[in-house]
Amino acid sequence: MSRAFNFCAGPATLPEAVLKQAETELLDWRGTGMSVMEMSHRSDEFVSIAETAEKDLRELAGISDDYAVLFMQGGASSQFATIPLNLLGENAEADYVSTGIWSKKAIAEAKRFGNVNVAASSEDSGFTTIPDQSSWATNPDAAYLHYTPNETIGGLEYDFVPESGAVPLVADMSSTILSRPLDVSKYGLIYAGAQKNIGPSGLVVVIVRKDLLGKARKETPTMMNYQVIADNGSMYNTPATYSWYLAGLVFKWLKEQGGLQAMGEMNARKASKLYGFIDDNDFYANPIDPRFRSWMNVPFTLADDALNGEFLQGANARGLLNLAGHRSVGGMRASLYNAMPEAGVDALIEYMTEFAKERG
Amino acid sequence: MSRAFNFCAGPATLPEAVLKQAETELLDWRGTGMSVMEMSHRSDEFVSIAETAEKDLRELAGISDDYAVLFMQGGASSQFATIPLNLLGENAEADYVSTGIWSKKAIAEAKRFGNVNVAASSEDSGFTTIPDQSSWATNPDAAYLHYTPNETIGGLEYDFVPESGAVPLVADMSSTILSRPLDVSKYGLIYAGAQKNIGPSGLVVVIVRKDLLGKARKETPTMMNYQVIADNGSMYNTPATYSWYLAGLVFKWLKEQGGLQAMGEMNARKASKLYGFIDDNDFYANPIDPRFRSWMNVPFTLADDALNGEFLQGANARGLLNLAGHRSVGGMRASLYNAMPEAGVDALIEYMTEFAKERG
Repeated sequence: MSRAFNFCAGPATLPEAVLKQAETELLDWRGTGMSVMEMSHRSDEFVSIAETAEKDLRELAGISDDYAVLFMQGGASSQFATIPLNLLGENAEADYVSTGIWSKKAIAEAKRFGNVNVAASSEDSGFTTIPDQSSWATNPDAAYLHYTPNETIGGLEYDFVPESGAVPLVADMSSTILSRPLDVSKYGLIYAGAQKNIGPSGLVVVIVRKDLLGKARKETPTMMNYQVIADNGSMYNTPATYSWYLAGLVFKWLKEQGGLQAMGEMNARKASKLYGFIDDNDFYANPIDPRFRSWMNVPFTLADDALNGEFLQGANARGLLNLAGHRSVGGMRASLYNAMPEAGVDALIEYMTEFAKERG
Repeated sequence: MSRAFNFCAGPATLPEAVLKQAETELLDWRGTGMSVMEMSHRSDEFVSIAETAEKDLRELAGISDDYAVLFMQGGASSQFATIPLNLLGENAEADYVSTGIWSKKAIAEAKRFGNVNVAASSEDSGFTTIPDQSSWATNPDAAYLHYTPNETIGGLEYDFVPESGAVPLVADMSSTILSRPLDVSKYGLIYAGAQKNIGPSGLVVVIVRKDLLGKARKETPTMMNYQVIADNGSMYNTPATYSWYLAGLVFKWLKEQGGLQAMGEMNARKASKLYGFIDDNDFYANPIDPRFRSWMNVPFTLADDALNGEFLQGANARGLLNLAGHRSVGGMRASLYNAMPEAGVDALIEYMTEFAKERG
């Protein structure tokens, strides 16, 4: 088949232009006689690839020199432990907001390392909304306030940045980073597994305010110590070089598309089209409070669950792939990350229209 | 330039056939319309890639069902902490043998988590030999005995497998795994960063005897808990899917080459040629006790260090890349992993011969 429209929640579709450049350079990067994956991470060539990627990311997201940018491994799930190990003192407390499966995982892991205050939760609603910040029971002395701007599985997304005052704000942006403009200065720490909007899995990007470095507990594994990773330019050991290179290609591509402002406009348009269609068609439904519907992950159900298999089969046959919802929630989910072109959404709506007509 | 001979110690050269297959499949894996790096790790396609890779590795290295094979992230450096967190009880002691820079790093990290007994060290010799096992002061009650079969930086390699009796033997095989036949049954745990003989960086393979699982300390980050990773088939979170796929291509390639027996014969021949040339030529020298010379990493010096720059420049011009020794030791180093063809060694010797004639 030619390139399909891949709605996978992650690892997710990548820009075709990025994959083509990677293909061209795979055996010989710019006349060096080597693939990027065969280069010493300390070589001039790779160091330039790595530094350019960081520079482009800083430019895209407006990251000032007050922040270190780390290219780490182990995914966001490793960060669930790395964050309390680095930021949560032995006797301090951290605030967490619970809005879905990924928040809950972050909370469960943090509790293994210290005192966690769940300042707010929307579990009572089935995680279909975000509690108003006025209702949050935050601790003004918390070591940090952790939230999950976009819940990939639930399809629930904040439309505001929480106010945390002097408490460092920590965000798991795995599935929303780079999808629209971002004010990094509001955060103490941002982390994002790469496999949605950045690149292939096996890379996690951490943006951390430098005054938060150097506070790791003594039992922190060296490879999890932000200060060590920052001091060594993310090369304390061999980093995931090829993933870092691909992330760099994605950053270049984003700049060519017009940066985060342009991506935000396109992502808003894609999401609005699909939600609009779902709302207008009785055969489909989305359970999320409209104010907090995710631009990135659009879960939907059919009027009759018994038709799910047939729906997915028909979608696959048209090259509309990976529309099954997460195994924990069922139904459907269309992920519309940066690399999903608007034509993919159009094709999906066309198919959904026909399916509803025939089987609705 | 066309493909060069890349003697980098890691990330290292990969088989050209593997890179070509990856190139062919980069945008569309077997008609799925997706790159492997865009596939859900839980999709049938990726699960089959992952399972085939594990099966091929088990077949190549003769790994029985008594062992779990884990595809983790963070490199061998993360394992330096992961191993004591999982295997070293609060009050127990672990034996370590110190034979070079990588052993020392493993020891330093383990000491942060518990009692370490350095049972033997060859530091007095400048790490040019391996202490005879009869001289090791091992603890019969140790939680494990850790050693480094090949020191990548020093170019020092064991020609025997230590006897550890009932104490689990733990080996950092990053730079020697799959380079010759291996008796896994002698080990409690083997780990290897992928970027030498397995695939790209960002993947670390752990082979662990199942009776050693389930002993992690309570402060172990979940992503470092071998039991959790094993119970979830290395998919507790999103693994480094593309690296795993490439490792699988390398395993297939190794099988096509005749497996570890054939690789061992070829690697012995390559090393013997290069060491033989160095010994016969007064202009070059290798400092390592001949019995323990590494097949994988061949450090050598020129008669005059002032010629190092010129030597490297001439080598680069001929497409003989990355021959500079590690920044901590200087001189030269030629890494001869599985993917370095014998023709690369021949080309290197030809160049070294000419250089010595002209400048010696």
